Amino acid sequence: MAKMTPRTLSGFMELLPQPQQQMERMMQILRETYALYGFTPLDTPIIEASEVLLAKGGGETEKQIYRFQKGDADLALRFDLTVPLAKYVALHGGELSFPFRRYQIGKVYRGERAQRGRFREFYQADIDVIGDGKLDITNEAEIPSIIYQTFTRLGLKRFQIRVNNRKILNGFYAMLGLTEQSGAIMRTVDKLDKIGPDKVRDLLLSDCGLREDQAAEILKFIAITGSNAEVLAALEGYMGRHELFDTGLSELKTVVKYLADFGVPEENFAVDLTIARGLDYYTGTVYETTLLDHPEIGSVCSGGRYDNLAEYYTDRQLPGVGISIGLTRLFYVLGEQGMLNPDLPTAPADVLVLPMTEDLAPAISLSTRLRGAGVRTQLYTEQKKFKAKMNYADKIGVPYVIFLGDDEIAAGVVACKDMKTGEQTKLPFAETLDLIRSGLAEKNKGTVILE
Amino acid sequence: MAKMTPRTLSGFMELLPQPQQQMERMMQILRETYALYGFTPLDTPIIEASEVLLAKGGGETEKQIYRFQKGDADLALRFDLTVPLAKYVALHGGELSFPFRRYQIGKVYRGERAQRGRFREFYQADIDVIGDGKLDITNEAEIPSIIYQTFTRLGLKRFQIRVNNRKILNGFYAMLGLTEQSGAIMRTVDKLDKIGPDKVRDLLLSDCGLREDQAAEILKFIAITGSNAEVLAALEGYMGRHELFDTGLSELKTVVKYLADFGVPEENFAVDLTIARGLDYYTGTVYETTLLDHPEIGSVCSGGRYDNLAEYYTDRQLPGVGISIGLTRLFYVLGEQGMLNPDLPTAPADVLVLPMTEDLAPAISLSTRLRGAGVRTQLYTEQKKFKAKMNYADKIGVPYVIFLGDDEIAAGVVACKDMKTGEQTKLPFAETLDLIRSGLAEKNKGTVILE
Repeated sequence: MAKMTPRTLSGFMELLPQPQQQMERMMQILRETYALYGFTPLDTPIIEASEVLLAKGGGETEKQIYRFQKGDADLALRFDLTVPLAKYVALHGGELSFPFRRYQIGKVYRGERAQRGRFREFYQADIDVIGDGKLDITNEAEIPSIIYQTFTRLGLKRFQIRVNNRKILNGFYAMLGLTEQSGAIMRTVDKLDKIGPDKVRDLLLSDCGLREDQAAEILKFIAITGSNAEVLAALEGYMGRHELFDTGLSELKTVVKYLADFGVPEENFAVDLTIARGLDYYTGTVYETTLLDHPEIGSVCSGGRYDNLAEYYTDRQLPGVGISIGLTRLFYVLGEQGMLNPDLPTAPADVLVLPMTEDLAPAISLSTRLRGAGVRTQLYTEQKKFKAKMNYADKIGVPYVIFLGDDEIAAGVVACKDMKTGEQTKLPFAETLDLIRSGLAEKNKGTVILE
Repeated sequence: MAKMTPRTLSGFMELLPQPQQQMERMMQILRETYALYGFTPLDTPIIEASEVLLAKGGGETEKQIYRFQKGDADLALRFDLTVPLAKYVALHGGELSFPFRRYQIGKVYRGERAQRGRFREFYQADIDVIGDGKLDITNEAEIPSIIYQTFTRLGLKRFQIRVNNRKILNGFYAMLGLTEQSGAIMRTVDKLDKIGPDKVRDLLLSDCGLREDQAAEILKFIAITGSNAEVLAALEGYMGRHELFDTGLSELKTVVKYLADFGVPEENFAVDLTIARGLDYYTGTVYETTLLDHPEIGSVCSGGRYDNLAEYYTDRQLPGVGISIGLTRLFYVLGEQGMLNPDLPTAPADVLVLPMTEDLAPAISLSTRLRGAGVRTQLYTEQKKFKAKMNYADKIGVPYVIFLGDDEIAAGVVACKDMKTGEQTKLPFAETLDLIRSGLAEKNKGTVILE
């Protein structure tokens, strides 16, 4: 028979079992941490009607979208989790309680140009808090805590949550009479890290059409750095000149004020007046998260406050705040940087049971007991030489192998080999179980990311 | 602004938060149970090249598939998890260890005619064990144990795992000289439950072209019922007439022999000579699982042994055994039957913290402590009347509400209300935490399915 050469599409991540187990650990930590903050899991369809998904329309999105006809229906694959959330809240709003706090971890699709490290199918891991008409600033203050816990539980230490407030920026530009140009200015200022202040000034003059004095004001403003207290003090100097600015500063002060109570260490947090987030719809606090030793990766968790989640679907005012982690890309980058902990167990099982008797009943019963005790157990019964069996155990990386022969059965013990130390014990079941459990607890102690 | 009416496509399940939490519990139980048996999680792309996905070609599949063009690429959404597994093993086989045991829980797509309870996007939850060239019969004997554990952990009691062996059927039809007609006969016999033996006989004569004596032999054969021991004894009577039959009977005896050691009670298991599974590629043990009180649902977990997983992609002989649960449909049916446990917590949080002070710092610190202790905590800070806040707590179904006012802070206690009993305590943090933890353990005791 002619064979079809199997392949996986480029831009689609397909992991081998061991990295997949690491990815599963990361997902599980995200689920647990998001749940700890009172977010409920949602799971919306991957396919939506194109007109629903593209209600906002325009831009890069429409070019990259996977869109197709099925029968009479014009369908598309979701390109993010925010539009489906807007649809969900607009559609089911009557049955939800607000503030509505949901997380969703799911695949999204963008037909980007294929290149290394760029994915067309990738996981986003989002949380959002949606208010009905209003939403208290405390929700914005809580987000850094969620980011901090998530990355800490994953094992990262040297990361920084950078926070700004769009009201401060918009108020500041309004003071300078630059409201119209604010979008172009923010995009230019966003390049500060890459091109430096002199080139930013040039672009502000040439591309944004600013006067020298306006550009100087902006450079002075974005040069405000230091501790949170220092930055806030410097911002106080602009108070009283524009209402929006004053509101923004008051919000930012609230966010900073509660940081310690939310358990966020000051070293993992910084007010950063240069960040704005590209999306037009952010209206208050905005967030970026960078790995201090890997600034080239860019932000690994971003988001912000918006005033109108679902304006394309409903007249209902639905303000919210949310963040998103691009999980597939993050996982890829961590792997590239060698930051995934190789010592955590990734085997399909904790114990491999090798029967050494003709009758398999004792080995099967033993496996059933181990599973009953919560130990992930694989029973290996293929007709192979002993050496081949041990090679298999080595290759899958199983931490323990249990042998059960007539001698052990007669003596009421099991032979258990720790595959890492090579140590072999012959103990009764209960003691072997204790040994395995404490060993597993030790082996599973580490975090999935090593830094 | 003109609004787009939000909608979700018909045939696509989109759950409200409370049922979604029940669905998440079911998925988590499947993940844990599959892992307990030493299966590793996989996650393959939802989109594949059409030629890869349709390498086998033909039939209903091709009509139902979501297939589309993107640029030059002819793409399709997976319609099951077996073909992607075959591709995966053929593609990555050199880096896998065999037997290769994987589970996958993922969405698949079939453009079926929309009707109540039929889904176009639905979860399948599959496990497969793949051998390299050979695969020991013990793997087939282990499957009923996995099915039993899975459904028991979900909370089902009155279910039956029905098992047959295709070698017995094919050997038996060969004895009667009916190898050619065996497919048609099996499809007819499969209707026994619905139409009864007389009509099966009629169809065997009219549609399958059998002689009276052949039809009589078949009816006698499929009338073999009783305990496992009785059925096996009756089958012994056919021994020695066809090699394939003898092999199949020997395999079936092995499956039955180890049932008790695998922890499967006899009442949840039955040898059933009428089941065959439609798919042509099953070659050994086949499985169906029915709910005894809901036979109309049909099989909720099916599968079997096959000899050649990836014959369209590789010359390598890859025999395997696997089962699949149609999770979305199962969840839908359980909901329709009122079998989902309404008493298990489905709130986004375990505790809702209501600050009663101007300064939120004490309430935020308390929330941080609760989260640090693993209690899912939502901090509620919206400016609402007390009654509105309590209504919110009621609506989301949170088990505990904690109030923190100046009095409590001064006294070093927290006020905690059990929303079910209405009982309110004022105790120090540690005691309140104990109370919440033991209460949650109690509330989470039940199974997700009630029967």
